[in-house]
Parts: sequence; C-alpha cells; structure tokens
Amino acid sequence: MSIRKMIALHPNVHGHVNQLLSDAAHHLMYCARMCVSCADACAAEDMQMRDCIRSCLDCADVCEAAGKLAVRHTDSNDQVLRETLELCGRVCDSCAAVCEKYPHEHCRLCAQMCRECAEDCRNAAASVMEPA
Amino acid sequence: MSIRKMIALHPNVHGHVNQLLSDAAHHLMYCARMCVSCADACAAEDMQMRDCIRSCLDCADVCEAAGKLAVRHTDSNDQVLRETLELCGRVCDSCAAVCEKYPHEHCRLCAQMCRECAEDCRNAAASVMEPA
Amino acid sequence: MSIRKMIALHPNVHGHVNQLLSDAAHHLMYCARMCVSCADACAAEDMQMRDCIRSCLDCADVCEAAGKLAVRHTDSNDQVLRETLELCGRVCDSCAAVCEKYPHEHCRLCAQMCRECAEDCRNAAASVMEPA
Amino acid sequence: MSIRKMIALHPNVHGHVNQLLSDAAHHLMYCARMCVSCADACAAEDMQMRDCIRSCLDCADVCEAAGKLAVRHTDSNDQVLRETLELCGRVCDSCAAVCEKYPHEHCRLCAQMCRECAEDCRNAAASVMEPA
Repeated sequence: MSIRKMIALHPNVHGHVNQLLSDAAHHLMYCARMCVSCADACAAEDMQMRDCIRSCLDCADVCEAAGKLAVRHTDSNDQVLRETLELCGRVCDSCAAVCEKYPHEHCRLCAQMCRECAEDCRNAAASVMEPA
Repeated sequence: MSIRKMIALHPNVHGHVNQLLSDAAHHLMYCARMCVSCADACAAEDMQMRDCIRSCLDCADVCEAAGKLAVRHTDSNDQVLRETLELCGRVCDSCAAVCEKYPHEHCRLCAQMCRECAEDCRNAAASVMEPA
Repeated sequence: MSIRKMIALHPNVHGHVNQLLSDAAHHLMYCARMCVSCADACAAEDMQMRDCIRSCLDCADVCEAAGKLAVRHTDSNDQVLRETLELCGRVCDSCAAVCEKYPHEHCRLCAQMCRECAEDCRNAAASVMEPA
Repeated sequence: MSIRKMIALHPNVHGHVNQLLSDAAHHLMYCARMCVSCADACAAEDMQMRDCIRSCLDCADVCEAAGKLAVRHTDSNDQVLRETLELCGRVCDSCAAVCEKYPHEHCRLCAQMCRECAEDCRNAAASVMEPA
C-alpha cells in the first residue's frame, strides 16, 4: 500500500516517479487527516481552543486539495500544481504555529506533521518545472 | 437558502458581512460543483478531452478548499484566507483557459463560471486585510 | 448559474434531466456548505456545543460526497448513487435533530436546510431506478 | 506518522483505541487517494475507461467522507458512523468490481485496495455499538 507505487503505474509516468512530489503526496494525505483529527480533539478539550480548530480545519482542506493535485499526472497542470504546493507549505507552517501554542500531545503531533509536510511541499514545488 | 444569510448569523460577524467575501464563498461553492460536473461530462464525450478533465478536477478541489475557508469566521486566519483566494483566482483562470478551447456547451458554461469566480476571488482577497 | 442547467448539458443527459436528482444535487451543495458554516459558528459560541460541531462536520462530509455523486452522469453507478442518497437523508435528519436542540439562529437555519435536503435525498433516491 | 497514534491522543479515547475503527480510518485515507490516482490514470490510458473513471471518483468521494468520520471521537455519532462505514464497504466492493474488468496494473492495485478497505469498513461498522 503505497502512493508512490500507485503513481509509478500511471501511463504518463511509467516508473519515472518524481520522488519529491510523491513524498509530498504521501505527507499531504496524512497531514490532511491528522488536521481533521486534531480539530476534533481540540473540540473535545476543556480548554478553549477555537483558533486551533479553525486553523486545523483550514489546513486540512488545503492539504486535501493539494494532495489530490499531487497524485494527478494526466496531461499537465504544472503551474497550478507548483503554486498550490507553495501555498500549502505556508498554510501548514501557519497551522503548526497555532498548534505549537498548546500543551496537548495531539497538537504537538499535528504540528510536527505540518512542519514536515510544509518542507515536503516546498521541495516538491521546486521540483515541478516552470512551464516553457 | 443563502450562504450570505448563514454567514451573517456567525457570532463574530453579527450582521456585518464582508459582501465581497460572501460573494466569493457563494461562487466558490458553485464553481467547485460545476467543475466536477464538467469533468464528468468531458469523460463522457467522444472527443479526447483529458486535459480538461484534469484541469476541472484540480480546479474543483482548490475551489472546494477555498470555499470552505471563505465561510469560516471563528478566530481569524486572514493571511491563509487571502493567499488561498489569490491562488484560487489563478487556478480558476487557468481552468477557464482550458475549457475555452473546446466547443461543448458544458465547457463554455464552466469557463464562464470560472472567470466569474476568479474575479470574485481577487476582489475578496483584496478585501481581507493584511495582519497588523 | 444553475446546477440543473449544467447537468442538462451532459452528453448522456441531453436535456432530459431527472428533476428530483438535480434538486437533490442543488440542495446537497448548499447543505454541505451550511454545515461547514454552522460548525464554525458553533465553535465561536460561548456555549459548549461540541456535539453540534461534530454532527455538522460529519453531515458536511457526507453531503459533499453525495452531492458530487449526484452531478455525475457518465456511465452509470445507480446502486451506489441510490444508497448514498438514502444514507445522506438519514445523516441530514440526524444532524438536524442535534441543531434543533440549540437556540442559535445559525443552528435553526442549518436544521431547516438539513430537513429539506433529507427530503430531497429520499425523493432523489426513489427516482434512481434499481439496476436490472 | 500514524493515524492510530493520533486517535489515541484524543481526550475521549485516552489510549483505548478501537483497533478495527482505526484500521478502517487508515485504509479509508489510502483508498480515497488511490481511487483519485486510478481515475486520473484511467483518463490518460488510450483505452476507453469512462466507467472506471466514474466509479473511482465516486468511491474516492465516499471513502473521503467515511475516512473523516472515522477519525472523529468528539461526543458520538455512532449510528451515522456505522451506516456510513457499511455503505462505504459496498461502494468499495462496487468500485473493485469495475477495476477488476481492466488489464492495467493501476486498476489491479486499486481493486486490491478497495477490497481490503471494504473488509475493514464492515469490520469497523460491526465494532461500533448500536446506541442504547
């Protein structure tokens, strides 16, 4: 079960996977779901955490979109893909900064995931070439 | 049934709706669904339209994310919101340019929706103030 | 700007729109976004409303999925579509029941949308024929 | 990086994870993304595969919704969760049956993922107790 293996089977890819992009696709999938989970956990805490609910839900939505774009390889949509990955990197960093304000372990884990995903998004964006 | 009316009831908004943002929220909801529909119609055409399937699905995903961010008003996440709207404007224009290459009425309607949504996204982004 | 008009342009539909299904597609799009908005408003209220945040987010996700299926007309996936609409009707009723416990206007409006959407889902499901 | 670990940190769960539900949450996340990837690969094949594009996109949307519900543990929404998992099991099996008609490796891998996910959904649904 691997996103990379699936991408490798695409007829336009035929084994020549962009590793940085497939790493981002993998982490974007996890980060989107981790943020859904963290928002839900924040809603259950006794502490008032509405800024964290908000930023986690926003981050989940942007990661979800970016993660779907990152697995598509039919025709090409490189400028859209690159700019979406760049935005998503900034959104993940912004969400991490909110999670890092809180003492809960789910926030700490979510922030860590967001920071890794942000780094992957930036690397993947740089690997997607400018259109000629 | 109105997105604007719903947003007006948010405790942080209490009637003072950002009209440009609520217009964008409305069109983003429609544009996301129109793009899902256009991608599906393109897949059913006899003509080879894989670039349009790709760009419509990508645009649907980005509009979906931006449209969800645009209805949220808890705490604030203005920089993320503004940058997501700016990106979404570019993604909508890019999708419209692909749809405009094709003779089908569903592509023409989708392109028109994308152009309107792009304009709304830019206006809404400009209306979301820079953080101090 | 109309979901019905877009569906009518699908090559497999060519004007013969299932009105009950297109009504459901329209309301599912709105109900999904209303529930996102209500969950966000609930998170901003001083009152503890975590059950309403949960049920609105769940309802938004199921309506989002059902609403995308409802606009697709390529090939056919009728049994999946019918069962998804039936489920979504129950999920909307369940969410309405939670919203109806609360005094806030955004909950009242969301509950009303959910009840209408539930009815539309049931009618649309009944209109999608059993596979032979 | 693990969905199970994240769920375990939820204040209502505090370590007592429903393993069947967390397994389903994990596979639903993968299955949703695999189906997006398979639909995209099908659109790029020379062969006409529109039924597989349709069923993979529908399955992706339902798995996405079910996967988000499966990580939430705030308050409880058990009947909705159980019925959504049951539906999703049927949708995954239905998608697998379409993918299994085709010779492509991405369809074979997607079908295998769908079959595993269907089994997990059924097991998880059975593990979510009826409300009293």
